[in-house]
Amino acid sequence: MKVLVIGTGAIGSFYGSLLAQADVSVSVLARSDYDTVQAHGIDITSETALGQWHFQPAQVVAKAAELAEKPDIILLCIKLVEGADRTELLRDAIGPDTAIVLLANGVEIEDEVAAAFPDHELISGLAFICVTRTAPGKIWHQAYGRLALGNYPGGLSEKTRALAEAFEKAGVGCTATADIVTTRWQKCLWNASFSPLSVLSGGLGTTDILTTQEPLIRAIMAEVCAIASALGHEQPAEIIDRQIDGTHKMPPYKTSMLLDFEAGRPMETEAILGNTVRAGHRAGVAIPHLDTLYALMKLRELRLRSSG
Amino acid sequence: MKVLVIGTGAIGSFYGSLLAQADVSVSVLARSDYDTVQAHGIDITSETALGQWHFQPAQVVAKAAELAEKPDIILLCIKLVEGADRTELLRDAIGPDTAIVLLANGVEIEDEVAAAFPDHELISGLAFICVTRTAPGKIWHQAYGRLALGNYPGGLSEKTRALAEAFEKAGVGCTATADIVTTRWQKCLWNASFSPLSVLSGGLGTTDILTTQEPLIRAIMAEVCAIASALGHEQPAEIIDRQIDGTHKMPPYKTSMLLDFEAGRPMETEAILGNTVRAGHRAGVAIPHLDTLYALMKLRELRLRSSG
Repeated sequence: MKVLVIGTGAIGSFYGSLLAQADVSVSVLARSDYDTVQAHGIDITSETALGQWHFQPAQVVAKAAELAEKPDIILLCIKLVEGADRTELLRDAIGPDTAIVLLANGVEIEDEVAAAFPDHELISGLAFICVTRTAPGKIWHQAYGRLALGNYPGGLSEKTRALAEAFEKAGVGCTATADIVTTRWQKCLWNASFSPLSVLSGGLGTTDILTTQEPLIRAIMAEVCAIASALGHEQPAEIIDRQIDGTHKMPPYKTSMLLDFEAGRPMETEAILGNTVRAGHRAGVAIPHLDTLYALMKLRELRLRSSG
Repeated sequence: MKVLVIGTGAIGSFYGSLLAQADVSVSVLARSDYDTVQAHGIDITSETALGQWHFQPAQVVAKAAELAEKPDIILLCIKLVEGADRTELLRDAIGPDTAIVLLANGVEIEDEVAAAFPDHELISGLAFICVTRTAPGKIWHQAYGRLALGNYPGGLSEKTRALAEAFEKAGVGCTATADIVTTRWQKCLWNASFSPLSVLSGGLGTTDILTTQEPLIRAIMAEVCAIASALGHEQPAEIIDRQIDGTHKMPPYKTSMLLDFEAGRPMETEAILGNTVRAGHRAGVAIPHLDTLYALMKLRELRLRSSG
């Protein structure tokens, strides 16, 4: 299996390096980190049992046209923020039989790519992980790492199963599901509530938020569930309790949106919250808590631009 | 008429100094600013036609026990923030015939004082003004200045009328109303929407907020109207349009809550937003936008304490 990872941030580097350990041929397309990754590869330090390792990609390219051969699978691992043109990044890298994996946060993130490449297999993926790129070619894995993969808009192909097996072999749990969109909404319950609250509070971790404002968290999650349900992606009845209980058991945790905010990087507001709100309005679901959070995030971003 | 102003912040200094110009005998009880005010009085600079003036109080005291005589009227002009003990401040200053005027933002701010001094006339007041204390004894009046006064819980006494006339004589418009509580809810429409948004956005002025998020502002205002209505303080049908139009015509304006936030001072979150939310729940009105804003303000305050 030949895999091309587009994006050498935390997610692309981490999962690409694991696939390489599972005897997959992994090349990378690097953008701002190209010089470092080309010269030195990527070093990963994990706080988990995975330990430390070095990842030397089969090929490191700055542009897809430089690739020696077309990959079987492209892992597109870029943050969905303003200015990220996924179609452009994919166009030169894709071969006739290449499957595209979108590993990203948010909901309803697939349609743009599906429309641009209607003849290609599209796999949607979610990473449940706490991992940071501390410098070009330097990745710090703090915790977790489980993946969920499935074909979009539904189903489970042989390629998806093979990819999930490769990840399992590399040491991270990977759930292959025929209904990845429902799983995506499930992750969104957590992200659409904790992420904006972490930023709008000015930088609180999950524990402070949950112990003081659990009713608000539950109200937001209930709205996300109602949207998912209206769109045919019914969530299990106990999902909110399960996510609340799970978060109570987690150590205090800064959301990735908060880390982006604190580092002055663009935030995934549209993928996580904007797409959720638009889906809610399209479905005719009343979502006043989400509306308020989304409006506040847009004000926060306006303020960042005007003071930047 | 003998008036005691408690609090030599922006509001107390400004309105006390105007009453003194209208031949009212005005003493002040100063707290942290006592030394400066005792030695030099108070200087007010206004950007309006009022110009500049100096205010030398009849008496400046640090404690009410030092007062030469009990006042006819006490103007209590302190911000309603944590740790402000109004009952304690009033107890030693009040005489048997003293009326108490509460000049403060927020809703449902009167009951604590009414309960502590059940035999005294209680006047509730609102200031529509942009004024700042730039240093001890230094007041900068930027714009506006109109007052609304009325007896609590309703009605209009001779003393209230006389006080309103004195303010009018001093050059600020003063509406005497028999239904001050309805007026208080009306001001709350504006304050409960723009104030938290100005802080949670990270510092936007009213123009940026209104031009980008008018639907949210309208949704919040509609919830405040619904609470007021449920409690018997029905607002005029066109009130939201009127406040929106009025704000569009104002120059970009930083709310007083934002000025407090930026200066690291305690914010009037409870008086403006907390009391509104509690009133809404008591009245059984659904207020998801206000619930979200209030929860976020509490998170913001928690964050300020944990980083302070």
